[in-house]
Amino acid sequence: MSPDAPIGVFDSGIGGLTVVRALLHRLPHERIVYVGDTARVPYGPKSPDTVRRYANEITHWLVEQGVKTIVVACNTATAHALPTLQRECPVPVLGVVAPGARAAVRAAQGGPIGVIGTVGTIDSGAYERAIHAIDPDITVLARACPLFVPLVEEGWLDHAVTRAVAHEYLDPLLADGIRALVLGCTHYPLLAPLLAELAGERVTLIDSADQTAAATAQILREHSLEAEARATPPRHRFVASDAPDRFLALGQRFLGTTLDHVDHVTFG
Amino acid sequence: MSPDAPIGVFDSGIGGLTVVRALLHRLPHERIVYVGDTARVPYGPKSPDTVRRYANEITHWLVEQGVKTIVVACNTATAHALPTLQRECPVPVLGVVAPGARAAVRAAQGGPIGVIGTVGTIDSGAYERAIHAIDPDITVLARACPLFVPLVEEGWLDHAVTRAVAHEYLDPLLADGIRALVLGCTHYPLLAPLLAELAGERVTLIDSADQTAAATAQILREHSLEAEARATPPRHRFVASDAPDRFLALGQRFLGTTLDHVDHVTFG
Repeated sequence: MSPDAPIGVFDSGIGGLTVVRALLHRLPHERIVYVGDTARVPYGPKSPDTVRRYANEITHWLVEQGVKTIVVACNTATAHALPTLQRECPVPVLGVVAPGARAAVRAAQGGPIGVIGTVGTIDSGAYERAIHAIDPDITVLARACPLFVPLVEEGWLDHAVTRAVAHEYLDPLLADGIRALVLGCTHYPLLAPLLAELAGERVTLIDSADQTAAATAQILREHSLEAEARATPPRHRFVASDAPDRFLALGQRFLGTTLDHVDHVTFG
Repeated sequence: MSPDAPIGVFDSGIGGLTVVRALLHRLPHERIVYVGDTARVPYGPKSPDTVRRYANEITHWLVEQGVKTIVVACNTATAHALPTLQRECPVPVLGVVAPGARAAVRAAQGGPIGVIGTVGTIDSGAYERAIHAIDPDITVLARACPLFVPLVEEGWLDHAVTRAVAHEYLDPLLADGIRALVLGCTHYPLLAPLLAELAGERVTLIDSADQTAAATAQILREHSLEAEARATPPRHRFVASDAPDRFLALGQRFLGTTLDHVDHVTFG
């Protein structure tokens, strides 16, 4: 495997672009191939078996593209499929759950940790397991927030409705005194300003994207797979399994920079 | 084709059960085979090509099950795929758009008609076309309401948040003096009490489910395919492409009666 090879990143849709944003920031010389499975989005309410099947298909495709490592930039896919992918894939695979859990444990300093995510991520118990693997005595309060993804996609990032929904979801966790709140879905960083205001200063918000980018940098270092600096910036590739135009239009909000082209690839 | 054969009904998920409910009410002797494509739900934000591919796969499966007619109980699938399905299918196929459009024209008596639905249904312009085919002079005001489906699935049918979202979506249509409002998505009948209150007495709400059941009854009559009354009630079959347990749990709310079993079938 060559250090020149790209990093593969995938998500059920556009949310994983928040992870790409963090990767571009931390690893500016790396080339990215991103897959958004927009034909089958969202993964959140789907069964573990179905999510595993979808994640396997995309991972195979990324390996065929010659990636040197794969980042599962989707909490639901990480929760359901990571062990399978790590076992079967010829390149290192990392997910968003373990890095987020480690950062939450550091920030909470023994206090209760809140975790919010899709129904699939929360029901899987993946964050509880990852947090308790570090410290079994920490109290974890988890809550599925299925309305946050459609609210973000509607662009209502600072809307009275979003604030009311956030109160409904978070007030019980805040009443129980959480010290850290894991944004366990790659869409949620776009709601971070509103959630931070609601949660107050006592609560540290954990954005898994930054933590995952740091973990990716470490894996590349360990395997001596870091790309070298070049005169020309790397050319990334973005692929969507459906509606590449909508991906292009929405993607910029998540990536924080312009997207000039999105390819269409069919899986399954 | 025998009158004993079942009626095939499909939707991207559970919303089409509101159409089944209307069919059971109007055609109590008919047997139903219902497919909810929960592995690929929602169709609303997906491209016309992808929705057509999914609708074709399910239609083929229903034809293999020996159905005598097919009801596309999904506005997005009707909007994108109905002409293709009607051309290629050996049994009559009907959708939810034309019956809803006819009822809206009757109710509005020449006044403006509001249409609400998913992004896919609204962008397709299917309701405008169906309404203008009856009366080209009627003003149609269409609005995508992507938050309504997740709000219904969250069960927030009479929640302050849902009321605020409904105001955001409907106030411009109401200010323009609509006389009828087409609920252009099979999830929306569950919001009918709240929407009716908001819209006031001047606006007639059009639930396509009832209209579609009436159109189905007419097609069966025309083809002499009506089932005969029997001593034992017909046994229906419900199929989901993913998470049949969730379908079972949520389905009752849409169907208005108990669901005792849901089969799992994989498409695509």
